[in-house]
Amino acid sequence: MEEKNMKEIMEKAEVLIEALPYIQRFNRKIIVVKYGGSAMVDEELKKNVIQDVTLLKLVGFKPIIVHGGGKEISKWVGKVGMEPEFVNGLRKTDAATMEIAEMVLGKVNKSLVQMVESLGVNAIGISGKDGGLLKVDKKLSNGQDIGFVGDVKEVNPKILYDLLEKDFLPIVCPVGMDDEFNTYNINADDAACAIARAVKAEKLAFLTDIEGVYKDPEDKDTLISELPVSDARKLIEDGYIGGGMLPKLNNCIDAIENGVSRVHILDGRIAHCLLLEIFTNRGIGTAILGDKETKFYHE
Amino acid sequence: MEEKNMKEIMEKAEVLIEALPYIQRFNRKIIVVKYGGSAMVDEELKKNVIQDVTLLKLVGFKPIIVHGGGKEISKWVGKVGMEPEFVNGLRKTDAATMEIAEMVLGKVNKSLVQMVESLGVNAIGISGKDGGLLKVDKKLSNGQDIGFVGDVKEVNPKILYDLLEKDFLPIVCPVGMDDEFNTYNINADDAACAIARAVKAEKLAFLTDIEGVYKDPEDKDTLISELPVSDARKLIEDGYIGGGMLPKLNNCIDAIENGVSRVHILDGRIAHCLLLEIFTNRGIGTAILGDKETKFYHE
Amino acid sequence: MEEKNMKEIMEKAEVLIEALPYIQRFNRKIIVVKYGGSAMVDEELKKNVIQDVTLLKLVGFKPIIVHGGGKEISKWVGKVGMEPEFVNGLRKTDAATMEIAEMVLGKVNKSLVQMVESLGVNAIGISGKDGGLLKVDKKLSNGQDIGFVGDVKEVNPKILYDLLEKDFLPIVCPVGMDDEFNTYNINADDAACAIARAVKAEKLAFLTDIEGVYKDPEDKDTLISELPVSDARKLIEDGYIGGGMLPKLNNCIDAIENGVSRVHILDGRIAHCLLLEIFTNRGIGTAILGDKETKFYHE
Amino acid sequence: MEEKNMKEIMEKAEVLIEALPYIQRFNRKIIVVKYGGSAMVDEELKKNVIQDVTLLKLVGFKPIIVHGGGKEISKWVGKVGMEPEFVNGLRKTDAATMEIAEMVLGKVNKSLVQMVESLGVNAIGISGKDGGLLKVDKKLSNGQDIGFVGDVKEVNPKILYDLLEKDFLPIVCPVGMDDEFNTYNINADDAACAIARAVKAEKLAFLTDIEGVYKDPEDKDTLISELPVSDARKLIEDGYIGGGMLPKLNNCIDAIENGVSRVHILDGRIAHCLLLEIFTNRGIGTAILGDKETKFYHE
Amino acid sequence: MEEKNMKEIMEKAEVLIEALPYIQRFNRKIIVVKYGGSAMVDEELKKNVIQDVTLLKLVGFKPIIVHGGGKEISKWVGKVGMEPEFVNGLRKTDAATMEIAEMVLGKVNKSLVQMVESLGVNAIGISGKDGGLLKVDKKLSNGQDIGFVGDVKEVNPKILYDLLEKDFLPIVCPVGMDDEFNTYNINADDAACAIARAVKAEKLAFLTDIEGVYKDPEDKDTLISELPVSDARKLIEDGYIGGGMLPKLNNCIDAIENGVSRVHILDGRIAHCLLLEIFTNRGIGTAILGDKETKFYHE
Amino acid sequence: MEEKNMKEIMEKAEVLIEALPYIQRFNRKIIVVKYGGSAMVDEELKKNVIQDVTLLKLVGFKPIIVHGGGKEISKWVGKVGMEPEFVNGLRKTDAATMEIAEMVLGKVNKSLVQMVESLGVNAIGISGKDGGLLKVDKKLSNGQDIGFVGDVKEVNPKILYDLLEKDFLPIVCPVGMDDEFNTYNINADDAACAIARAVKAEKLAFLTDIEGVYKDPEDKDTLISELPVSDARKLIEDGYIGGGMLPKLNNCIDAIENGVSRVHILDGRIAHCLLLEIFTNRGIGTAILGDKETKFYHE
Repeated sequence: MEEKNMKEIMEKAEVLIEALPYIQRFNRKIIVVKYGGSAMVDEELKKNVIQDVTLLKLVGFKPIIVHGGGKEISKWVGKVGMEPEFVNGLRKTDAATMEIAEMVLGKVNKSLVQMVESLGVNAIGISGKDGGLLKVDKKLSNGQDIGFVGDVKEVNPKILYDLLEKDFLPIVCPVGMDDEFNTYNINADDAACAIARAVKAEKLAFLTDIEGVYKDPEDKDTLISELPVSDARKLIEDGYIGGGMLPKLNNCIDAIENGVSRVHILDGRIAHCLLLEIFTNRGIGTAILGDKETKFYHE
Repeated sequence: MEEKNMKEIMEKAEVLIEALPYIQRFNRKIIVVKYGGSAMVDEELKKNVIQDVTLLKLVGFKPIIVHGGGKEISKWVGKVGMEPEFVNGLRKTDAATMEIAEMVLGKVNKSLVQMVESLGVNAIGISGKDGGLLKVDKKLSNGQDIGFVGDVKEVNPKILYDLLEKDFLPIVCPVGMDDEFNTYNINADDAACAIARAVKAEKLAFLTDIEGVYKDPEDKDTLISELPVSDARKLIEDGYIGGGMLPKLNNCIDAIENGVSRVHILDGRIAHCLLLEIFTNRGIGTAILGDKETKFYHE
Repeated sequence: MEEKNMKEIMEKAEVLIEALPYIQRFNRKIIVVKYGGSAMVDEELKKNVIQDVTLLKLVGFKPIIVHGGGKEISKWVGKVGMEPEFVNGLRKTDAATMEIAEMVLGKVNKSLVQMVESLGVNAIGISGKDGGLLKVDKKLSNGQDIGFVGDVKEVNPKILYDLLEKDFLPIVCPVGMDDEFNTYNINADDAACAIARAVKAEKLAFLTDIEGVYKDPEDKDTLISELPVSDARKLIEDGYIGGGMLPKLNNCIDAIENGVSRVHILDGRIAHCLLLEIFTNRGIGTAILGDKETKFYHE
Repeated sequence: MEEKNMKEIMEKAEVLIEALPYIQRFNRKIIVVKYGGSAMVDEELKKNVIQDVTLLKLVGFKPIIVHGGGKEISKWVGKVGMEPEFVNGLRKTDAATMEIAEMVLGKVNKSLVQMVESLGVNAIGISGKDGGLLKVDKKLSNGQDIGFVGDVKEVNPKILYDLLEKDFLPIVCPVGMDDEFNTYNINADDAACAIARAVKAEKLAFLTDIEGVYKDPEDKDTLISELPVSDARKLIEDGYIGGGMLPKLNNCIDAIENGVSRVHILDGRIAHCLLLEIFTNRGIGTAILGDKETKFYHE
Repeated sequence: MEEKNMKEIMEKAEVLIEALPYIQRFNRKIIVVKYGGSAMVDEELKKNVIQDVTLLKLVGFKPIIVHGGGKEISKWVGKVGMEPEFVNGLRKTDAATMEIAEMVLGKVNKSLVQMVESLGVNAIGISGKDGGLLKVDKKLSNGQDIGFVGDVKEVNPKILYDLLEKDFLPIVCPVGMDDEFNTYNINADDAACAIARAVKAEKLAFLTDIEGVYKDPEDKDTLISELPVSDARKLIEDGYIGGGMLPKLNNCIDAIENGVSRVHILDGRIAHCLLLEIFTNRGIGTAILGDKETKFYHE
Repeated sequence: MEEKNMKEIMEKAEVLIEALPYIQRFNRKIIVVKYGGSAMVDEELKKNVIQDVTLLKLVGFKPIIVHGGGKEISKWVGKVGMEPEFVNGLRKTDAATMEIAEMVLGKVNKSLVQMVESLGVNAIGISGKDGGLLKVDKKLSNGQDIGFVGDVKEVNPKILYDLLEKDFLPIVCPVGMDDEFNTYNINADDAACAIARAVKAEKLAFLTDIEGVYKDPEDKDTLISELPVSDARKLIEDGYIGGGMLPKLNNCIDAIENGVSRVHILDGRIAHCLLLEIFTNRGIGTAILGDKETKFYHE
């Protein structure tokens, strides 16, 4: 074998060996992946995410995908001649809108199933209605009724445990029912967080359209790599965090406080960000972790 | 207790006791129910069907629902300003139509899940994509390509066995994938028949909008109550069977020839027709059965 | 179909649907039935009771029958020329009487097995000796030794759990052993109560020859339909309860206090009283229940 | 330790070690013991048999006892003033006699349960009615109807496998039911043989009141220790075998021909004959075995 | 059969029956046997020990053998021209010595596997390295480093439970690893004691070269048959115990205090001492037991 | 992130994704690795091999290591002053040599266990004696008795299935027993081949000191990458194969003919050769495969 080839394949071997301790560490652990944003629009990124999650499944992890469907919903609301309406940034969801939202989320759900199946792994697409997975209360926006938008009040994880036991990769769309069995839309971040808590996930990873949490969002050099939960709370108190990051970071804190070991805010625009975060010694984005956890993770 | 009351409750007891041998006979047996037609449109009938299937589940049967979505699909195709197109009675299904069909079927699917869950039974709604349940070939209509319409070529029943083992009521919509993992629409009768064969169902019941099979469709007095499979074949050969009944009856014959014990063509417009057929000594509609089977069933 | 027939079968369907919530509520729950009195003498009632219990088994409950053999024992004691002897209403049971009692109870036991088996359900008849099910102490009657009459001091439920797991319907006759492995007769009510406590039964039902508990036994209009356990205690304290009802009601209170959810005193002379109590919205007899339990049950 | 003691305990050790290969050979194998004759009358022998079977159970075998009740039945028939009647050596069994026979067999059955339980092993006493174990046809005696005497036509071994799996020692009395679920008495030898065949027992042992099979019954020196099945057939053809031995030997041949490895005719009057046969290098009585089986067994 | 023979085989039966209660008492209980001393040198005794342990296995106990290799190690140290060195009675174990010790212990280990396998029982020989069974700290002797001699600091019993569940007889040699995965020699008595504690053994038996514990070692008549743990402690405090017995007795006390029911110090020079101790009503050597345990054991 | 870093981590991701189809293909498949030669001498290579096998284990494969101990045995034979003796290239193995060989192999075995354990995976080191894994016949060399050298005549894979089920990585040294339970040395290649056949391994990989099979050993450019079994046979017939390669290739052919899908002759001197062969699209060494197998593997 020529020397150049030899060197190249040696490097391959090193990458694989580098993955060894991480595979070992997360073997048979549940990892909830909130899948959304650009990574859901760009076809190449989409393929990458599905490859990553499938690889996680194959090497012994137990991934669960929770996905949204944001822009697609607006598109279809428009297609049927309705006008999307937002109140304080939340979609006002009357019965007709909810019907379309559920249809679109269902379509996205099955398209993900399709991609995973094409890679030879058994997937099953469910919504929060199946097996009574997600029970909700109506969510008010500053006291205002905005229709069928729900807050998760209870997760019944039986269906997820059953599917994981039978070796399926569950793909969940964020629709639930209230006590009268009406259908509600749920924010996908919230659904992923509630599910991660209920199944005591080892990790919860958000695929986002940002690089991570910044100390100063204006200054790209202030990206925070590891953020203990008390520091996260302090950043919020001190007003450093705003916009869409605020509810996301609150979700992260909530997850850590309820038994999830580590939450990752990843930049979904980087190909294979999930894989790189988990299998290599280079962290991607921001990891929120418990205060007591030793920082050995990427060292 | 007054005499009148006494008589009434005694009659109740008799009905329950009458169900005893049928419960016993079908205990832990799989029953595939093709759900469609009027029973899917009328809200009261819809509730009745779901109550019936839920009761079957609770008393120890293993029902699987396979449903269509016919009229709803046309409605939504219209809503987005497209024109439904049919070739030899089959919907021409281009990519855009398939997308809508899948969305609508998904919506119907989850609405059935919702109703079963509201009765306290765990349901899970899947399509033929999940777990690779339904593999299809493109179906041609007299040699003509009519788009994403599929013939079932292979059923992978693992997902159904897994879900039944975990005590779920599976609700299946007739969408499948070809070898390149493209999405196809499948006729719901065909899907139900293929699934019944694959899981070696004890019974396959079609909820239809007719009373059953007639010797002479003009003469309501010629309704056939029990139809041995060889007689069914003869009726077809002799040209007695036409219209929508022909493929349905061919499906019935196919199921019987492949291990299903009994196929029922029920009048879905009669409330609780499923329950009455299975639990009482009055047959409803037409039962197709193997030639050798003794006729003791409703005697 | 003629209108009259149609109406009739619709009523049948309604009865079955009415049973739905009760089937769901008691699915996989253990129900102990104390079988005795007239319902054991009249051949038609006997058949009804066995049909009822078999139906309970088939629709997913886990019934256990505990039976007595009262009059038959006296008859056989007479047949072999011995004189039955009673002390304070309890049969004086010397070794010879015990031998006959055990034989008669065994015969009754197997005749019940026979009836259940003829309905296609697997039954197994055991006594409290099998698997060490019932351990007793000698019972004294006002300090007087009345022979081999025992008080249950310990129940070893392993054999019942094993048989239920293997899907048998256990039929138990009230014979037990003391620490020296001598044979004792046990009051069937006491045995049923002890077993219901040991297996944490959901229900304990006594088939009796009375209509239920009366506030005033002279006045048939004072039949109590639901009796919270504290009211039951009060009725006893206030001297309303006497005769054979007193120990029975004490057994009921004991069962409720030890984890059984609901105890029924049913009129075994009404055909299918068990079925009607459990599957319809008409209560039969008197139900003793915990004080905190909400009264929604038959409303 | 004194020398004499030392020698004595060394001998003890040798006996235990001698048992080693036999324990190993029969580990987890089913052994059916037909228990009857003197060993059932003499209290000391009774205790010995139960000790032996219990020991077999404890060291890992799966024994099943099948017992008769001959003399006791006649005694109780007499007690109630009836006259036992025999036709060609078979008890004529009208309904009244059958009732008594079942009672007596039930009593004997539970007394054996009692003895096994007192040795700390879980026993369960069943009849051929329980779990539908023994299905019979009416047996005629030279074409004559002799009442409720049955020939086993079918064994349903599920109940025995269930009980063995749950670690019970099953004790079976030879009562069965015909297709109409009537009760029949069965010859205990026949029942034991039918059960041994159905469960593919490794061994079937008959406890009898004779020393074994003689070439010449007049000459005690002609006791046959090992009898290949073809030799057994020849002995019968040549007229050497008569009396009660004839049906017994036919049963033995039948068992060997249907998968039982070895059948033993043991002298139940010798204390611990069962134990000695199985655990020591001294055969007791006559062993019937397949023709091909090598004779290494006691060598 | 001649009378003399008859008497002899009756005595055999009695020995077996005598074993009955002990088999029952220890059924499925774990028994750890420390195997060492003369019983490991003399070929006949060796065979006896293996027969005994194999018999324990076959009759339903779960034995685990822990063995040393003392004299063999010294022999091989010599063979390769090295000089064994002892500090305070402990072998000074440099890397080269440790290498030989591990080799010799491995050889002894497999020779025991071989003997058990030849008796038809599945054995598996492991060291404390396999499955991370024994974790050690370096042991100092009066503060002095004596090389790779370890104190057990943690037992991971998973491997033992796995092997017992799969019906193997585990044979363990006392080698372990420290936190850096270096190899250490462990005193076999200590290893046996640590393992017995970790698996909550019913019994721990030491095969030694002494008759047991004496009140006065000079006076053979003062052998103590049963020694409550508090008396054992007192004997030590009062200075009655010295030499090799002191650590052994401390191990015994430690085991009793940590959940082992009974510890035996047996004279391994008596053939089948293990069997005789467990299966007969003659105790051998000294049994150390909890203070509260009733003394019924050999009475 | 800087561009250079970005590119580097993207390449890492690609390597991992490249592994995806291979992980999927071999998930839960058994892979037998014959470990020997230089890879066992060089400390760095040793570490690499163990890392590779551990990674295989962690990502869902079921590896089994079979190792030799060649040079170490000779070294220790020398240490104790004996002279290694070879007959036709086979070590003459008298009892003393066998004793040393077993000791050395045991030591090597445990050192591999140690390395795997240090990587956090449960290993267990066994020889062919444990659980009766390897039964041998004496091997003659051209008719000459060369002592305790064995040919595998029977593999009892139960122990391997048990250990794999319990999630251990089994490490096997090639020692076995004959029918009289004497100890024999076995050629490690032969042992690996026999084990691969017995467990129907998906792959058998030999780590060797050569680059693979050459058409012309003199010409390094004639290395054969994929060798159908019929071509392999032809190479031998035509005399192209000689020396140590001949028995090795015969083993490969034997394995393929007995159900192993693919056999690899790898160059153990290349770091991570095992990993690279299995996880990348670059084959290393020579793969022997069935004639019918399509060649898609590395294309």
